[in-house]
Amino acid sequence: MNIPGLARRYLPILDWGARYSRGTFTNDVIVAVIVTVMLIPQSLAYALLAGLPVQVGLFASMAPLVLYAIFGTSRTLAVGPVAVVSLMTAAAVAPLAAQGTPEYVGAAVALALVSGLLLLAMGLLRLGFLANFLSHPVVSGFIMASGLQIAASQLAPVLGIHAEGETFLELIVPLALNLVHTNPYTAAIGIGSLLFLFWARSGLKSLLRRMGLGERIAGTLAKIGPAVALVVTTLAVWGFGLADRGVSIVGTVPQGLPRIALPPLDVGLWTSILVPALLISIIGYVESISVALTLAAKRRQRVDPDQELIALGAANVGAAVSGGFPVTGGLARSVVNFEAGAETPAAGAFTAVGIALVTLFLTPLLFFLPKATLAATIIIAVLSLVDLGALKRIFDFSKADFAAMASTILVTLVMGVEVGLVVGVGLSIFLHLYATSRPHVAVVGQIPGTTHFRNVARHAVVTDPEIVSLRVDASLYFPNARFIEDLVNEAVAANPAVRHLILECPGVNTIDASALESLEAINNRLKDGGIAFHLSEVKGPVMDRLKRSHFLAELTGKVHLTQFDAVASIKPDLARSTLGVPRTE
Amino acid sequence: MNIPGLARRYLPILDWGARYSRGTFTNDVIVAVIVTVMLIPQSLAYALLAGLPVQVGLFASMAPLVLYAIFGTSRTLAVGPVAVVSLMTAAAVAPLAAQGTPEYVGAAVALALVSGLLLLAMGLLRLGFLANFLSHPVVSGFIMASGLQIAASQLAPVLGIHAEGETFLELIVPLALNLVHTNPYTAAIGIGSLLFLFWARSGLKSLLRRMGLGERIAGTLAKIGPAVALVVTTLAVWGFGLADRGVSIVGTVPQGLPRIALPPLDVGLWTSILVPALLISIIGYVESISVALTLAAKRRQRVDPDQELIALGAANVGAAVSGGFPVTGGLARSVVNFEAGAETPAAGAFTAVGIALVTLFLTPLLFFLPKATLAATIIIAVLSLVDLGALKRIFDFSKADFAAMASTILVTLVMGVEVGLVVGVGLSIFLHLYATSRPHVAVVGQIPGTTHFRNVARHAVVTDPEIVSLRVDASLYFPNARFIEDLVNEAVAANPAVRHLILECPGVNTIDASALESLEAINNRLKDGGIAFHLSEVKGPVMDRLKRSHFLAELTGKVHLTQFDAVASIKPDLARSTLGVPRTE
Repeated sequence: MNIPGLARRYLPILDWGARYSRGTFTNDVIVAVIVTVMLIPQSLAYALLAGLPVQVGLFASMAPLVLYAIFGTSRTLAVGPVAVVSLMTAAAVAPLAAQGTPEYVGAAVALALVSGLLLLAMGLLRLGFLANFLSHPVVSGFIMASGLQIAASQLAPVLGIHAEGETFLELIVPLALNLVHTNPYTAAIGIGSLLFLFWARSGLKSLLRRMGLGERIAGTLAKIGPAVALVVTTLAVWGFGLADRGVSIVGTVPQGLPRIALPPLDVGLWTSILVPALLISIIGYVESISVALTLAAKRRQRVDPDQELIALGAANVGAAVSGGFPVTGGLARSVVNFEAGAETPAAGAFTAVGIALVTLFLTPLLFFLPKATLAATIIIAVLSLVDLGALKRIFDFSKADFAAMASTILVTLVMGVEVGLVVGVGLSIFLHLYATSRPHVAVVGQIPGTTHFRNVARHAVVTDPEIVSLRVDASLYFPNARFIEDLVNEAVAANPAVRHLILECPGVNTIDASALESLEAINNRLKDGGIAFHLSEVKGPVMDRLKRSHFLAELTGKVHLTQFDAVASIKPDLARSTLGVPRTE
Repeated sequence: MNIPGLARRYLPILDWGARYSRGTFTNDVIVAVIVTVMLIPQSLAYALLAGLPVQVGLFASMAPLVLYAIFGTSRTLAVGPVAVVSLMTAAAVAPLAAQGTPEYVGAAVALALVSGLLLLAMGLLRLGFLANFLSHPVVSGFIMASGLQIAASQLAPVLGIHAEGETFLELIVPLALNLVHTNPYTAAIGIGSLLFLFWARSGLKSLLRRMGLGERIAGTLAKIGPAVALVVTTLAVWGFGLADRGVSIVGTVPQGLPRIALPPLDVGLWTSILVPALLISIIGYVESISVALTLAAKRRQRVDPDQELIALGAANVGAAVSGGFPVTGGLARSVVNFEAGAETPAAGAFTAVGIALVTLFLTPLLFFLPKATLAATIIIAVLSLVDLGALKRIFDFSKADFAAMASTILVTLVMGVEVGLVVGVGLSIFLHLYATSRPHVAVVGQIPGTTHFRNVARHAVVTDPEIVSLRVDASLYFPNARFIEDLVNEAVAANPAVRHLILECPGVNTIDASALESLEAINNRLKDGGIAFHLSEVKGPVMDRLKRSHFLAELTGKVHLTQFDAVASIKPDLARSTLGVPRTE
């Protein structure tokens, strides 16, 4: 690939930027204003959730947006701090430094850098497929448990209680014990904000509609409920002097843009955050790509999964060098961006300008902002992550998937996010291997009037005592290699008259070296017993591979194109007379 | 199950013991004498390999044999210390205590106990299938690398050099640097033994045949080469006073039977050896069950894999309470037992009596036994584990299997047995998942004159521009769920005239919750494009599961029994006219 080709591949901005018009510009600026208003409370709140000073949340909402606009392939994805990644950041950094120290902030910034470099590496090496190893039930279980844990962690600031802990269990017990220490002023603000925000999610939109606003503008304005709560409660704290009554406030936020600097090059620190950074990268990527694909499908746009890794990697490196913490594409903000009508990633870049203006000029206004309001914002945002209906649906569909999901939820709640995620992925892989180690097997016979063969237990079919036909519904590979041997042994023992054993292989998508050993053992044992061993319906790629071994030369029977051909070559009369019978079903 | 039924299930001795005759007894005693002579050098040598005093090897060759005779289902398996497990014992115990201390012996004994308890638990819980997760290439790669490492570790004693190290690399470098310190007397004994034993493996048998002995007895006597080497070199050391010239000898071996006692109950120790004990249990089981199944197949006998776990568990607990180290069923000794004509496990019990007699009365004769001879015995025994031809065969058959095997060998040689085994298993699972994440997919068409559909790229088939039929050769589950979505998107983009998309599912052995989400997404997207989505050849168990979701209700097309039915229901004329065409191939 030449230089312009490479540039076009890795810089999607060249594509949409060339066709950028004045009309699009005006539209994107309007979108940016709406998204900025929505992002301010979120950025502050998620910084607090990660245990960081609020301005770190603002820093993480500038450079990443600009970099995503340059490298990203989604037209509508909005990156920045999100709930689950902020929780994972807190879990990763807490063991390394005490909250409130410069070391804690430094570790969070380093986490963004390492996570960004990992994402860039995965993108350049085209390792996006790694995200596929997280099954849907594991991801949704993990996000559900994270949501519950985040909500539990925010109940203490909502009520003005001091309670610390890392896992759901560690959080919920001291919270219950300290309920008597609730600060009434904080609780009034916190619970009031909660109720208002809860109502705003459904009621505000219909109220605005009744006030004569259009469907879309009412829906978008309803999303700025958190900004309204923020302004009202800040004014209340200031007006009634509630900071003196024990209401915890944000306080002084340093004014001005972040200094661009590399995080300290501390190899020991980088090594100790490597595993959490990897988990954050993968979860962040899965969340982001899901949102991007969903929104792109609605407008029939394309998203390139490998380029998205590069864009998120650049966004996180950008967050790190401008003093921010790990970011990713978030559902809530992307939906606002999408519904407000963002046409190009430039809307994100303009949002960054909006956040920068706030950081430059408006931070003094945040002095009296009560932390309880921000906590309420977070609780309302994460409640939408908890989807109990999904548990029921998955339980009905697949017990193995449900087991993986339930275990992910339980382990995440009891032992924390990192252990929960690793256990969930490990368990879902193990359960898959376990299921294929004891595959479904059918004894098959010919459906009268056809050349098709089906399970004798489900269909009225014709069989012959001298032929046993087994259909194995699994690839033949190491977890089930010995199972197949036992299966054939038992089938032969149960059918003393058998002279031919046919393994019908339409479900055999691959045969590995372990299974080849087993097939050779089966062939030898059947040969000793005077039974011919046949295969049928072997797929092309499997056949190609068998030809590279000695198995076909040693096979006592033949490999037949179809199961009908196999039976017809052994018992031509039987196969043809069955075919002649009119089909009854 | 009633008490007699339980007893018969868990005590196979009740079965063969009831039919035990005087003729069988005489036969088994003769076999036991032969095996005892062969076992003495092996037991001493493997104890040294594990870093233990020689009598520990004798102790591990008594109680385990008796317990296996009671619980085992193989008629011919011989348990005791084996090369690979002894190496793994050394690797597990070395970090915990210094060689030569009572703590070192105590840790090895505790390892046998924990390993035995794990095997018993796996047997009672019927977890024998766990051994299936070790693929054949990983196991043979691991055993090959262990053999190389063992051979490397024994070169130093053969040459009379002092060189210590745990991994192959750590062993081979100091060995090469210290070659100049070779002790000429030790080297004469060691290399002489090596040459004699190497010749004995092939030449001794034909010599005995020429001396007029029968085929079988010559073959069996040839196996006692190590015992001959042991006697000759011991006499040489004693006669020429070589112990004073730097030849390392066994020295005083405490006379008498082991004291029966429980190993110290040290929870810290037990916890720290849990993982190595698990790996030893699994590798020991895999080695043992492979030998047992191979020998049983030759005589058409049965082996029960779950009962074998119980028998090996009992044997290891027996080893532990009688001061021995981990044992398992060994290939070399089992083959001797088999070829000498062992008819029942009683032969093993009689061998235990033979070893006990040696331990009681003959240990003073071992005083001048040179360690170089034992090392030579080990080298010759493990060389048969190195099968370079297997590497070539597996390379030809499957690159993924070869990658798993080669990695297992390399990592074991460089980083040791435990890391090697874990990496090998992990890699073989990952490579399987990776392969299924990008499954083989074929666009299929109807073979003229038949109702069968095959890959358009491999067969002359009939297709229609309005119908795209895709056959996916893989179960639909989380690693490939998104791949299937991309696949359908691309197929639709490449065929603008398409009105029906049929997914032919003969290779779809299961559909999990992640793939269900993808199918729903495909159905919705195709619906938006005015394309009907059909399934064909869906297997019974997969259909049962789909019925438990909303997917079938929302499906825009239908589910057809066969691919022919699917095309025939959409384009009856096309399907039937193609069927009418005479088959050309």
